[in-house]
Amino acid sequence: MTSFAIIGHLARTDGGFSLNDLPGSGGRMDVLCRCVNTSLFLSHDLRRDVDCYLVLCGEPAAPKTIRFSGNAVRSLSPDERSAGALIKKALDIPTGSEFREAAPGISVRKGGLARLMTEHTFAVLDETGTDIRTAGQLPDAFILSDHLNFTGDEETLIAMCPRYSVGPACLHADHTITVVHNELDRRKAQWTSMNR
Amino acid sequence: MTSFAIIGHLARTDGGFSLNDLPGSGGRMDVLCRCVNTSLFLSHDLRRDVDCYLVLCGEPAAPKTIRFSGNAVRSLSPDERSAGALIKKALDIPTGSEFREAAPGISVRKGGLARLMTEHTFAVLDETGTDIRTAGQLPDAFILSDHLNFTGDEETLIAMCPRYSVGPACLHADHTITVVHNELDRRKAQWTSMNR
Repeated sequence: MTSFAIIGHLARTDGGFSLNDLPGSGGRMDVLCRCVNTSLFLSHDLRRDVDCYLVLCGEPAAPKTIRFSGNAVRSLSPDERSAGALIKKALDIPTGSEFREAAPGISVRKGGLARLMTEHTFAVLDETGTDIRTAGQLPDAFILSDHLNFTGDEETLIAMCPRYSVGPACLHADHTITVVHNELDRRKAQWTSMNR
Repeated sequence: MTSFAIIGHLARTDGGFSLNDLPGSGGRMDVLCRCVNTSLFLSHDLRRDVDCYLVLCGEPAAPKTIRFSGNAVRSLSPDERSAGALIKKALDIPTGSEFREAAPGISVRKGGLARLMTEHTFAVLDETGTDIRTAGQLPDAFILSDHLNFTGDEETLIAMCPRYSVGPACLHADHTITVVHNELDRRKAQWTSMNR
């Protein structure tokens, strides 16, 4: 099982955003929708062994966490609007402290990064970290930030996490997830020029 | 300069599609929008040395080719709808046999893959190809298909192209572009564990 958690610093925490304006009205919800896509989609298939956590920190009810579970999700298409509609649905139901299912494979609860960190041993994806290609065993849970840097409070929470880098260029969060998946896929398949 | 060309087998060739339904009314235009994103975007920057060609093969005026030039494009945001709006704009202007600019860095012409192949030395990204990590010098122009396989006519056109693979999993076209960029970024920067 692999988990990705993406912090949406301005992402709306109610359903009051427009699917026609995910970047503006959604507080850059488009970034999170693309992260759902790259976390979960294979060509004509889903990555059933992946959970994607969206940590929403925007107005009016932050923080909330939405979980997309690859092993249970249905009616998710790759386009941003499809993920956006499911996020909106999750944000429209009453939310408590435990995950509640809003649609198959999609759950929501109150709480944010601090709680999530008690449940997973996360690594941080960050340009300064160890190269994922040369690292020994890779972790199975990764934290990324959206288009904004981690806040001071977040940096305090993740200070002890190991850090990994995917390459020399500074990438969008969703692109970073794709590169991590590629490295994990190669390792799982023991895919080298020798065995093809 | 790196070029990516993506074949949109059902992608509309006029502006008569809805930005609210890129997958349906646009003939899976969402796939092409995501390929524009992964071809051109860095975090808070654009890849100025990349051209992204969309080869549109759907109704009613196929084929047309739209070029997004990283060195000249403006007012492009990462969300699918932003690329979709610019594609729509390009498809709304009269089109001739030569590229005509519809917006800064975005041009359109009649013609498809056959013509494009006379102008670039393409490699094909395909699961059966040589691993990009172990290959010698990589090409600078790549062809990908959207959610559908290459047609028989396309396979004939690309039969002589070298083929490269990005890994053991069968990925979406946009994810494949991200992995190719990561390999090219590492090679350009001579980025290894030794020089960091």
